[in-house]
Amino acid sequence: MIPTLNPVTTGRGVPFLEFIDAASDAGFPAVEYSIVPFAEYAKSTSVNGLQDLLAEKRLRLGSFGLPVEFRKDEATFKEQLAELPSYIELARELGVTKCCTWLFPATDEPVAEYTSRFIRRLRECAKALEAGGIQFGIEWVGPKTLRTLKHDFIHTIPGALELIGAIDVPGVGLLFDSFHWFTSRATVDDILQLRKEQVVLVHLNDAPDLPADEQIDNQRLLPGEGIINLGAMLTALRQIGYHEYVSVETFSDTLPLLGAKEAALRTKQVVDRVLAVGSERA
Amino acid sequence: MIPTLNPVTTGRGVPFLEFIDAASDAGFPAVEYSIVPFAEYAKSTSVNGLQDLLAEKRLRLGSFGLPVEFRKDEATFKEQLAELPSYIELARELGVTKCCTWLFPATDEPVAEYTSRFIRRLRECAKALEAGGIQFGIEWVGPKTLRTLKHDFIHTIPGALELIGAIDVPGVGLLFDSFHWFTSRATVDDILQLRKEQVVLVHLNDAPDLPADEQIDNQRLLPGEGIINLGAMLTALRQIGYHEYVSVETFSDTLPLLGAKEAALRTKQVVDRVLAVGSERA
Amino acid sequence: MIPTLNPVTTGRGVPFLEFIDAASDAGFPAVEYSIVPFAEYAKSTSVNGLQDLLAEKRLRLGSFGLPVEFRKDEATFKEQLAELPSYIELARELGVTKCCTWLFPATDEPVAEYTSRFIRRLRECAKALEAGGIQFGIEWVGPKTLRTLKHDFIHTIPGALELIGAIDVPGVGLLFDSFHWFTSRATVDDILQLRKEQVVLVHLNDAPDLPADEQIDNQRLLPGEGIINLGAMLTALRQIGYHEYVSVETFSDTLPLLGAKEAALRTKQVVDRVLAVGSERA
Amino acid sequence: MIPTLNPVTTGRGVPFLEFIDAASDAGFPAVEYSIVPFAEYAKSTSVNGLQDLLAEKRLRLGSFGLPVEFRKDEATFKEQLAELPSYIELARELGVTKCCTWLFPATDEPVAEYTSRFIRRLRECAKALEAGGIQFGIEWVGPKTLRTLKHDFIHTIPGALELIGAIDVPGVGLLFDSFHWFTSRATVDDILQLRKEQVVLVHLNDAPDLPADEQIDNQRLLPGEGIINLGAMLTALRQIGYHEYVSVETFSDTLPLLGAKEAALRTKQVVDRVLAVGSERA
Repeated sequence: MIPTLNPVTTGRGVPFLEFIDAASDAGFPAVEYSIVPFAEYAKSTSVNGLQDLLAEKRLRLGSFGLPVEFRKDEATFKEQLAELPSYIELARELGVTKCCTWLFPATDEPVAEYTSRFIRRLRECAKALEAGGIQFGIEWVGPKTLRTLKHDFIHTIPGALELIGAIDVPGVGLLFDSFHWFTSRATVDDILQLRKEQVVLVHLNDAPDLPADEQIDNQRLLPGEGIINLGAMLTALRQIGYHEYVSVETFSDTLPLLGAKEAALRTKQVVDRVLAVGSERA
Repeated sequence: MIPTLNPVTTGRGVPFLEFIDAASDAGFPAVEYSIVPFAEYAKSTSVNGLQDLLAEKRLRLGSFGLPVEFRKDEATFKEQLAELPSYIELARELGVTKCCTWLFPATDEPVAEYTSRFIRRLRECAKALEAGGIQFGIEWVGPKTLRTLKHDFIHTIPGALELIGAIDVPGVGLLFDSFHWFTSRATVDDILQLRKEQVVLVHLNDAPDLPADEQIDNQRLLPGEGIINLGAMLTALRQIGYHEYVSVETFSDTLPLLGAKEAALRTKQVVDRVLAVGSERA
Repeated sequence: MIPTLNPVTTGRGVPFLEFIDAASDAGFPAVEYSIVPFAEYAKSTSVNGLQDLLAEKRLRLGSFGLPVEFRKDEATFKEQLAELPSYIELARELGVTKCCTWLFPATDEPVAEYTSRFIRRLRECAKALEAGGIQFGIEWVGPKTLRTLKHDFIHTIPGALELIGAIDVPGVGLLFDSFHWFTSRATVDDILQLRKEQVVLVHLNDAPDLPADEQIDNQRLLPGEGIINLGAMLTALRQIGYHEYVSVETFSDTLPLLGAKEAALRTKQVVDRVLAVGSERA
Repeated sequence: MIPTLNPVTTGRGVPFLEFIDAASDAGFPAVEYSIVPFAEYAKSTSVNGLQDLLAEKRLRLGSFGLPVEFRKDEATFKEQLAELPSYIELARELGVTKCCTWLFPATDEPVAEYTSRFIRRLRECAKALEAGGIQFGIEWVGPKTLRTLKHDFIHTIPGALELIGAIDVPGVGLLFDSFHWFTSRATVDDILQLRKEQVVLVHLNDAPDLPADEQIDNQRLLPGEGIINLGAMLTALRQIGYHEYVSVETFSDTLPLLGAKEAALRTKQVVDRVLAVGSERA
């Protein structure tokens, strides 16, 4: 598995190049990031210049967030969908093969129409990504504390798989987040029933010592500092054949206070420890 | 437009060959029917024999009901989906190019998962039908009196179009039923905003003199005997370029009492009158 | 099998409506024809008017010639390809499900490039036809007397199947002509190795009493008047499951001299006799 | 552009790990190689182990040769095609996005059938590669001295583009080799008429001081040591937007005599010099 750094962990205020430096210096071989700053860097220098930077920093972009707003009005969706191919083209040139998004678990709208619309829009994105050789991961969001709108929307693995089945494009699978695995009360068996290609990316976070139903989405701990059985989870993921990016996306108020470099370093240490525990090399 | 007879109108108890005779004798050029009895007839004689019968009766099968149960368990769905290609093959050989189904407008299940499952299954059917050159019509069901389960499901033209958009297979459109057009409070303008290819089949029925919200699904009148403005509806459908099958599917207790031949004859007379009113030939 | 009349048999000079009358009066249930006059008739009256005409004459258009010139320059190809969808749309509305073309068996051009170009262009046509639910038949041309250019091109069943394999679109198969079956020295076994879906249309003609290599393409006889074993051929075609259109395309100087009506009548008589011989009803 | 080493340059006898070391020590960021030894290494250790090796050597596999024999009998083709998905899966996991093959420029077989067969087979490969997000480069082979069989086959850029057009799968383009560019008498203008996505990979070689028609395929020089205007070629390739792998595939008797390490080093020096000359950084 490839330890990967998500900018949430170092704090969202860190500038692009500072984040790249911090990830590289901490020894991360990969980052999960928006592709937009990469595109901007390529525009201000050149794609060759961007490739040189990443080679020098020994970093790759492992996965990027879907740069298309599919949750709002049709005009916004269409406008951003029209820009997707240019990002896909850049991703191809950089050898990036994964893109992810997430689903808010509740809605005030009539659900059948809302679900149909999301499936149509995500399918449009998925077709474009697939044509560019990019897998598309969709994250279910588990915390019960977020389901406060009129109707529940998808918030479990089976629900996410139904949605992915309806999207029906090869290369679409789960963004598998340990925190949502825990808060949606999924089990090791639920992992073992997945096929390798149904897991596009793994997020590695931990949860404070609270019941699943009381967890708060943006209050998470570094891997190994909480109560989630990450060892069992990683073993099961390895068992089904997943051995790619493992991205640490720890929402925390205190971690960013250390500064990007120090936060990245500390994150690298804990993720190495957690990966070693679950690995045959331990 | 091609006047077409649906077996609901003559009563469901009428045997296949008697219905074919009644439709032919009444001068209908086409019927809307299950394809299963056609397949059985071909099996007991031959596809050539079936083709001869239809030529002799000057009848074609205009559209058939989707022979796949997509509303129940996965095993039933998969089993019947596996049989769909043989029906599609027969349809091809008979030159049938339309197949239809309908949506019940409410459910007790979690709606996002239910909607995702329906989209996946209908999409599977649609792909098979499209590969066989067959258009697929989906009927929304309007009466408020049917929406008594926990959650509403799709019951309007915009909702049906969202679902069709999510299915995202060419050749999928609406089964447009006058009774559901009326009970879902749709307008002539709603028709004029449709593209020709979004209408796969038209059902022609009338409604008793009751408010839209009090209409009962299986209590309908012959075209022209009720309060729906069928002339305006047909004019709008012609305006967008629809000029194919117009099938009379009148749920009635009394009509079948006349016997199949007489019921078919009377239906032909009223449908001719209604089609003439809305036509330039009037 | 459905006896079908090709206008070559009555002579190319017969006007559209006179040909339709002759075919109908002779009892043909179907014709093979260019779709262009159908489109012109629909334009001058309406698609509904055209549908009424065919219903009244109890005739259907069984198959139409590919209305795209793929043998000449790219501009001509692209221009006519752009018009194909409108013909396909009309074919859909009339329930026509077959379209055919043929290959000249020799060329002066470098063959690898010529073959690549034909495959690309025929594939473009095939994709459009398939999207419209229309099968696409490709005819190999057998007579050795036609292969007088620099290089041989495809002129056998195996060659045509290689080309169809390269086109790789569902619904593409052979236009199977008895005269080319004979002149390319194919056998009954060659038929029995075909799958049903590899035969899109059958042409029924006979050959004068000459060796296969001396046959002249545009000198053919009515079925049953020559030396081809049509009974064995039809039996083999039935055996693999073909039971659709059998079109008589007899190139003859004398037949058209009888007038369209008489030529059609005489053709119907001989084709009925030949179909009866090969059939279980004989 | 990314300097890339091809094992032909160091001599085919060098073992896999020795070649990897030589390429890495010489400072190449990428190699072009068969994927088979990569698969064997993953099998004997693990995919994770292979990923670790490449990260440590700071090397990526830029492009691999098509591991499917499409030139011989159907059984061999089908057998190897069936194994292609497992190589594609490995390529995905390693982030490899390019695969290439080449065309021998002459044949003894009937050309139309031969061309059709190649198109079908290459199309099968291309579809599998595209589904795995891998571009597919096809190399035309220019030297006239190789066209000694009965019939010419494709040996120019326009011919290769016709073939690629017939294959009609997104992501299929040219493997652009400087030696074949020269020997097929193509020009800078021919490059400028290509679209970026039509160039999948570039081979960089030079030719001895002989007329184009007298060049021998396996007698080539290191870039910059011969008569090909590589600067003009690279400038034109950059102009159309190509800035990915540039692989040195120098067939030479003397270069391998230096040993892999020394041959790689010397190759790196000359390719850096040639890339600098054609670049804005020169």
